Amino acid sequence: MKIALYDDGKLGLVQNGMVHDVSAALAVLPAADKPWMAERGDPLIRHLEQLQPAILAALPGSSAKPVAEARFLSPVQRPSKIIGVPVNYHEHVAEAETDVATFSDRFRGSIEQQGFFLKAVSALVGPGEGIALRFPDRRNDHEMELGVVIGHTASNIGVDEALSVIAGYAIALDMVVRGPEDRSLRKSGDSFAVLGPWLVSADEVADPQALDFFLQVNGELRQASNTSRMIMTIAEQIAYASRFYTLLPGDIIMTGTCEGVGPVTPGDTITCGIAGVADMTVAIHPAFADKRVLK
Amino acid sequence: MKIALYDDGKLGLVQNGMVHDVSAALAVLPAADKPWMAERGDPLIRHLEQLQPAILAALPGSSAKPVAEARFLSPVQRPSKIIGVPVNYHEHVAEAETDVATFSDRFRGSIEQQGFFLKAVSALVGPGEGIALRFPDRRNDHEMELGVVIGHTASNIGVDEALSVIAGYAIALDMVVRGPEDRSLRKSGDSFAVLGPWLVSADEVADPQALDFFLQVNGELRQASNTSRMIMTIAEQIAYASRFYTLLPGDIIMTGTCEGVGPVTPGDTITCGIAGVADMTVAIHPAFADKRVLK
Repeated sequence: MKIALYDDGKLGLVQNGMVHDVSAALAVLPAADKPWMAERGDPLIRHLEQLQPAILAALPGSSAKPVAEARFLSPVQRPSKIIGVPVNYHEHVAEAETDVATFSDRFRGSIEQQGFFLKAVSALVGPGEGIALRFPDRRNDHEMELGVVIGHTASNIGVDEALSVIAGYAIALDMVVRGPEDRSLRKSGDSFAVLGPWLVSADEVADPQALDFFLQVNGELRQASNTSRMIMTIAEQIAYASRFYTLLPGDIIMTGTCEGVGPVTPGDTITCGIAGVADMTVAIHPAFADKRVLK
Repeated sequence: MKIALYDDGKLGLVQNGMVHDVSAALAVLPAADKPWMAERGDPLIRHLEQLQPAILAALPGSSAKPVAEARFLSPVQRPSKIIGVPVNYHEHVAEAETDVATFSDRFRGSIEQQGFFLKAVSALVGPGEGIALRFPDRRNDHEMELGVVIGHTASNIGVDEALSVIAGYAIALDMVVRGPEDRSLRKSGDSFAVLGPWLVSADEVADPQALDFFLQVNGELRQASNTSRMIMTIAEQIAYASRFYTLLPGDIIMTGTCEGVGPVTPGDTITCGIAGVADMTVAIHPAFADKRVLK
């Protein structure tokens, strides 16, 4: 099942190039008991098992439009954390080591030694919202990744059971402004975590470690690899993360990028895709210079 | 006004050593229009200006109990991000530089060069919940800090207007397990971001850069300083952060710790306080070994 949020917050089911408005299914989401208190995960993903039959029930007679005409938002809206895996493709390690000036020499060693990093939840957007650059005079890079969305609360779990807590997959763009600062700052600008265009439920992906993917900028191929080239597998990532903190429904793991990362500038267009998941197009907006205090 | 969340999620007003149950005021919080979509900030903090008169209206005749008998939760429950400021006290810089083995040599240079880091929102607890150590065989340190809670959406704002976006202040414990991994991982274990015991609204703190604070472990004084010893001021922190991402109501800035950070072990008790804000006691629980998958 390919589940989307689109336009003004509609719930969509994607089939055969069309997105069907199945927002009526959202009625099965329970009201929050105490809506001022912390949520234990994204409300949509947490209730995905109840939501899926409701989506099928809402399908007959639903209105639909071509995928190309929809503005896709992130299929996860309220994750407790967005987790990044550092240099996790063999060829990207080599690339980073040959250009220390760009990729920074602060983070060396194995992934276990480096640890995972965080991206701010406020950075999350869908492809239809586009990417804005706060520092257009610095180098802003695309990092194309498989996004894994956690479906179940999980803590201290083993590699053997790790894949069973996955809700589904999406394309993830782990945008970054290069420089000396902590990665969790440079990767957390508004719109620097793109997830979409929809969630493909885990049952539709037979082997997440065998997916071809690519990324183009203005039609030029920049990144192309296969998830089989990961150094730390997805199951190992989930088990490792769950030793440090509890994973909650909706938590997103950006599983690392392959070689070919490079800069984007305002006006560019990113086109990217993962076989069996989706393709998507993302605009790089004019430079972001919004100064505001809202009271 | 000293605003608390306590026990099972009650809203409290703290006066003269008593916490008054003013939960009736929560009725002024508007229902979410689309509760599956991203929030633009913590619902309680975002509506603080409407909430404060409602709290006063709910006070007459409210039930009350001594502060010592309440279990205080974090007064912010749904921040979009918890931001940490690295080595921001003159004497803590000296301490870190003389013990590189403990404090890691990855992060050197000015605060602007190091950048801010993130702590996972899922790490947030109040003092009544206590702290659990996932790696009791590694060194787990207390870092006592002034916590600043953002009250208004702010992006690219100047130092001169930065203090005007603050909702209030609380005690913050920026717990950390020492080691080589990225700070945003080592500082994000469940319960490793303690905020409380309540929010003191900004109008009650005449000068946030002139506050004495202290931290004891089992009655032994470990940390004692004054917020005047910060290298980067609170206003500078807010302006700097707002260049990288939009600050949202409820976002928490942990403004850096002073010298004297040191280890805690299961069974320890932390007592800490900030003059004019609050005192609080936090238990270090037995080692955390919870293995679970909830489906």
